Amino acid sequence: MHSGAMEQARGVTDRLPPPPVGSFASDNAAPVAPAVLDALTAANAGPALAYGDDPWTAAAIDAVRDLVGGDAEVLFCWGGTGANVVGLAAMLQPWQAVICPESAHIVVDEAGAPVRFTGSSVLALPTEDGKLRPEQLDPHLHWLGEVHHPQPAVVSISQATEMGTVYSLDETAALAEAAHRHGLRLHVDGARLANAVAALGTDLATAVRDSGVDVMTFGFTKNGAMYGEAVVVLDPDAAPAVGFVRKQAGQLPSKARYVAAQVSALLDGDRWLDHARHANAAARLLAERAAAVPGVEIDRTPEVNAVFARLPADAIEPLRAWSFFWPWDPERRLVRWMTSFATTDSDVDRFVAGLEAIVAPRA
Amino acid sequence: MHSGAMEQARGVTDRLPPPPVGSFASDNAAPVAPAVLDALTAANAGPALAYGDDPWTAAAIDAVRDLVGGDAEVLFCWGGTGANVVGLAAMLQPWQAVICPESAHIVVDEAGAPVRFTGSSVLALPTEDGKLRPEQLDPHLHWLGEVHHPQPAVVSISQATEMGTVYSLDETAALAEAAHRHGLRLHVDGARLANAVAALGTDLATAVRDSGVDVMTFGFTKNGAMYGEAVVVLDPDAAPAVGFVRKQAGQLPSKARYVAAQVSALLDGDRWLDHARHANAAARLLAERAAAVPGVEIDRTPEVNAVFARLPADAIEPLRAWSFFWPWDPERRLVRWMTSFATTDSDVDRFVAGLEAIVAPRA
Amino acid sequence: MHSGAMEQARGVTDRLPPPPVGSFASDNAAPVAPAVLDALTAANAGPALAYGDDPWTAAAIDAVRDLVGGDAEVLFCWGGTGANVVGLAAMLQPWQAVICPESAHIVVDEAGAPVRFTGSSVLALPTEDGKLRPEQLDPHLHWLGEVHHPQPAVVSISQATEMGTVYSLDETAALAEAAHRHGLRLHVDGARLANAVAALGTDLATAVRDSGVDVMTFGFTKNGAMYGEAVVVLDPDAAPAVGFVRKQAGQLPSKARYVAAQVSALLDGDRWLDHARHANAAARLLAERAAAVPGVEIDRTPEVNAVFARLPADAIEPLRAWSFFWPWDPERRLVRWMTSFATTDSDVDRFVAGLEAIVAPRA
Amino acid sequence: MHSGAMEQARGVTDRLPPPPVGSFASDNAAPVAPAVLDALTAANAGPALAYGDDPWTAAAIDAVRDLVGGDAEVLFCWGGTGANVVGLAAMLQPWQAVICPESAHIVVDEAGAPVRFTGSSVLALPTEDGKLRPEQLDPHLHWLGEVHHPQPAVVSISQATEMGTVYSLDETAALAEAAHRHGLRLHVDGARLANAVAALGTDLATAVRDSGVDVMTFGFTKNGAMYGEAVVVLDPDAAPAVGFVRKQAGQLPSKARYVAAQVSALLDGDRWLDHARHANAAARLLAERAAAVPGVEIDRTPEVNAVFARLPADAIEPLRAWSFFWPWDPERRLVRWMTSFATTDSDVDRFVAGLEAIVAPRA
Repeated sequence: MHSGAMEQARGVTDRLPPPPVGSFASDNAAPVAPAVLDALTAANAGPALAYGDDPWTAAAIDAVRDLVGGDAEVLFCWGGTGANVVGLAAMLQPWQAVICPESAHIVVDEAGAPVRFTGSSVLALPTEDGKLRPEQLDPHLHWLGEVHHPQPAVVSISQATEMGTVYSLDETAALAEAAHRHGLRLHVDGARLANAVAALGTDLATAVRDSGVDVMTFGFTKNGAMYGEAVVVLDPDAAPAVGFVRKQAGQLPSKARYVAAQVSALLDGDRWLDHARHANAAARLLAERAAAVPGVEIDRTPEVNAVFARLPADAIEPLRAWSFFWPWDPERRLVRWMTSFATTDSDVDRFVAGLEAIVAPRA
Repeated sequence: MHSGAMEQARGVTDRLPPPPVGSFASDNAAPVAPAVLDALTAANAGPALAYGDDPWTAAAIDAVRDLVGGDAEVLFCWGGTGANVVGLAAMLQPWQAVICPESAHIVVDEAGAPVRFTGSSVLALPTEDGKLRPEQLDPHLHWLGEVHHPQPAVVSISQATEMGTVYSLDETAALAEAAHRHGLRLHVDGARLANAVAALGTDLATAVRDSGVDVMTFGFTKNGAMYGEAVVVLDPDAAPAVGFVRKQAGQLPSKARYVAAQVSALLDGDRWLDHARHANAAARLLAERAAAVPGVEIDRTPEVNAVFARLPADAIEPLRAWSFFWPWDPERRLVRWMTSFATTDSDVDRFVAGLEAIVAPRA
Repeated sequence: MHSGAMEQARGVTDRLPPPPVGSFASDNAAPVAPAVLDALTAANAGPALAYGDDPWTAAAIDAVRDLVGGDAEVLFCWGGTGANVVGLAAMLQPWQAVICPESAHIVVDEAGAPVRFTGSSVLALPTEDGKLRPEQLDPHLHWLGEVHHPQPAVVSISQATEMGTVYSLDETAALAEAAHRHGLRLHVDGARLANAVAALGTDLATAVRDSGVDVMTFGFTKNGAMYGEAVVVLDPDAAPAVGFVRKQAGQLPSKARYVAAQVSALLDGDRWLDHARHANAAARLLAERAAAVPGVEIDRTPEVNAVFARLPADAIEPLRAWSFFWPWDPERRLVRWMTSFATTDSDVDRFVAGLEAIVAPRA
Repeated sequence: MHSGAMEQARGVTDRLPPPPVGSFASDNAAPVAPAVLDALTAANAGPALAYGDDPWTAAAIDAVRDLVGGDAEVLFCWGGTGANVVGLAAMLQPWQAVICPESAHIVVDEAGAPVRFTGSSVLALPTEDGKLRPEQLDPHLHWLGEVHHPQPAVVSISQATEMGTVYSLDETAALAEAAHRHGLRLHVDGARLANAVAALGTDLATAVRDSGVDVMTFGFTKNGAMYGEAVVVLDPDAAPAVGFVRKQAGQLPSKARYVAAQVSALLDGDRWLDHARHANAAARLLAERAAAVPGVEIDRTPEVNAVFARLPADAIEPLRAWSFFWPWDPERRLVRWMTSFATTDSDVDRFVAGLEAIVAPRA
């Protein structure tokens, strides 16, 4: 697929400005935050029982609980796809259905993992901006109680969305209210929940518990961890057997202390929010700077750490060859640039220089 | 379940000898080998594309290929349950069946993950020593071709087994031959493959490729890694879509370089074999020393890093309270002690002292 | 749900014209055609080996093969949901996806059976008239080859559609061509295939084999059978293990001769087409007559045996109470009336009289 | 597989006595009882709402409820595999397990359908006679509560068993008691429940409700129906969503009245018990008569309608060629002969004559 993309990039940069040291391809392309690496080293002391029966795990669970404002079941998992699968499977029967936006990671980017593992239908609805509206639930709510139809049981949203947008607190609460009124649960894919909380200028408890979220994925990998996400069950009735589900989903880390140590390092002193604020600010800066380059049209002011830009068709491949990123919607000439906790001002400078060298002449 | 077991242990040791620093509970209770931690730190330099499109992954794949003696598809996964699921699912259709010993990890210890993910039947056969024999396949081979019966398609064995035994090269080859003769594939759960190769005094290519293995899990976590296992497809026809299966199983690490760096560190200079030899030797030492303690009956001379011992019924709980380990078969008063790359002679000394203090008086 | 609906209907008809003897609720509400019942009686002679190893099954398979113009694997199943599940599951891997209209029976009316049984994603696309267009495939074809995305592998259409429309031969062929060009298969849910073939004025071989269909459900229940549908594999490469899939799906009838006898009775002398023509003509007649009643707006001239009508909101429930049928889209005041092989002119007369008595006064 | 077996049989009978008119191959090879066919004809009057909202279904449900002695949820299904799948799936989560004998139909004869549909582990235990004993549960009960192990949730037994044996009322009650004490449910595969009730000389309520059965398949096909089985939920808490499960399993008949009419015909005047008594008596007669033939060794006095006989190795194929039946265990030279409600004394005479002509000379 994109094998060797970065190496290739190095070859074609001869007469172009130096590309960024970091990549705008994905927040997954960033390294591990130094504090996380230090925490891993610190945790590597002597033996510890496996599968979470260790003091690091107990401490990290407490830290997440504090942050979400009270009782919650917290289960650390390997990765984002796995954590979404665990959270959804813990709430769903196979004759039930999830309602979500068609741009959802669980629809587009997880190879169908939630469908295969749950056996449940995924009803993927179109949106303009990646955000589901309560009234979109209505047609499928008519299905409730009728054995011929899949039974809607969970509404799943991404916060922040895959399109770089953020649900306001009111929007989340309205979805939760509509879901709960009909006995459905609200699930949040929070792979970039930190970026959303930072963008909203709120705290996590307000963003999720007070907004009616039942179960969520709380992502750390894109926030500076090496690996590790949490499934957080805010309403214990929503997912009574989630521990069995996690193990069966292959998402129970054996040497669990090493996930927990990372989580604690990121939550300590609000480092997770600092990382998210940094990434969000870098995206805003990049968007502002790029918008000034002829030929670059910013699709929407970044709310979090994604910049969507429209470029001249013939500029996209040369730019990607110079510094790799993912095209988003080829038909609309839309590309996506992601920032992270590790994005530097210098890399923004370099990338804008590349836009001026590659895009502007083609505008 | 066993929450607080180690803490509790500390409370009751007042008048007993000091317990081992390391645990004999599991090779998962060991820390991460220093060389692995160093490799993680070294890999944490700048950006790298996610999902395996990075030079660390390419190098680690090459290292595994070298070791298995030629072409192979190598896919790094998060954990052992996940890797078994990926390897099996890549070979199986839901109307097919796996034949394996009833003591197999995929039967007993993975919460039914392979069954749920594949939908395939698991035919779990009784054994004395955890090792399947070719003639045990026969009754189920009569099922082939008949739509009413699940169709045997894969024979899965653990090497080393969960009972601490090792298939000889001839035994593996005989199973492979019997399987292949009827169109079945041979899968190896190699969570402790290093220990088996060390015990056999052979090399990996001989142990697996030359013995007819089609697909295997190659375990690193119990060998000194923080996390990370490989699915190795030795016969590319056996698992043509394994890449899709891995992603759908939630086993494709995003920041993949960090798995790969660990693998390379363990394979470098045969460190993986040194670790395994150390663990195996520690088990033999423990077994010899323990056998001399009145009341301790060693069930079988350890072939790898597991010691199975029969103890007086009233000695088991006091001993576990002093230094935690898992009971194995309460009805037979059988317990299991695991060693690892990190087991020290001093810890063997301490554990034997505990046996003398706790078990001998009850003999 | 609708328990007692027909009984209730009888109670409220005192001062209204007599309701139809047959129901316009569904073609499933019709009885069994006399020729089918005769064939069942004739088949009830002596013993016959179970599971299809009987001469009735051999003859019925031959009859279907003749009709589709050559080699085909023909597997009789119990019901329509089951037959769709078998046909789709025989073509799909769990990491693959089906593309279909969002109005498809497999999305709306099968309780999620295809999803649960296959584990595959169902990508349900909006349409105006229940008919998928080739260009709708394009966005998801970009997913091919990329492990993160479900892999489109089957296009599934209903012929006739759930909205009473029919794909022209060219429209089917264009979808088949678009699917095949990218390695996808074309599946037809033919629960009402007879009605479509009758409407097109063609023969079955032309309608399916020559149009590029790979696998289809060929429905008999709505055509006058007591039970029984066929999965027809037109391209044997498309579904190599379909026999195992049928058994595993619980769709292999034990006393198979009784399904086969019904199929032969319906195919004999083109009875299946006569039944379909009769039902289609009854729908056209009902539509014409109903359109003349004030307040009744026929949504679209019937192509097959479904009439969709828009009624005054306050007329719908009284009309249903008088003679039961299903509402279709309450928000658009749309109802559905189905005809069958058993619909009589007298019942059309009676129903129109009911419209005049109940709807016209509310217009 | 066995295609043409009956035709082939006709060719080799030249100098042998005439083979039976009916077959001893299976109770599925019998035709439909005349009363059942009459009931189908009687039900074929006018329209009826589909999917069970018809008076025939209501009456048949009442008849089953009367027979099981009180409240029960009764759901008619197409076939035996489907009914087992529905009953089990309605009780199981994928991380749970069924414990059953390794000879169970759900293990051997359903192509893995229960595993695929439920995702749950099936723990198949060895037995001498097809009957599970309470103490066999113990080793797996240690798994309860531990996330690493599949969680036993259902004990499934066949009554009568596939080996022709019958659980006494006390044996069933003891299994139910052992299951319930640990929170497990008792499921009965009653494909031949009529034969067992007849053998026990009891009534259905005593055999199932009073014995602690929670959910069962109640079979009609082998008792004289054309098709149709019931899932009976005796404890409504055991399977709260069974209606959704049936539809999703493709086991909800559309023209439901035709299943119900058959059930009512069989339950009317204890016809189902008469059929079973007849079949059981025919098996006893066949066993007695066959035992007198040199070379025929009856394995066990028939309790129900299966005769297991040991024959000289070289007699089996000639006998099968003369009158088809299934070998059971080739290595033990064991064959199975099944009787049914339709077995005649004349056919027993003929079959014994065949034994004398074919087996005796080879004794």
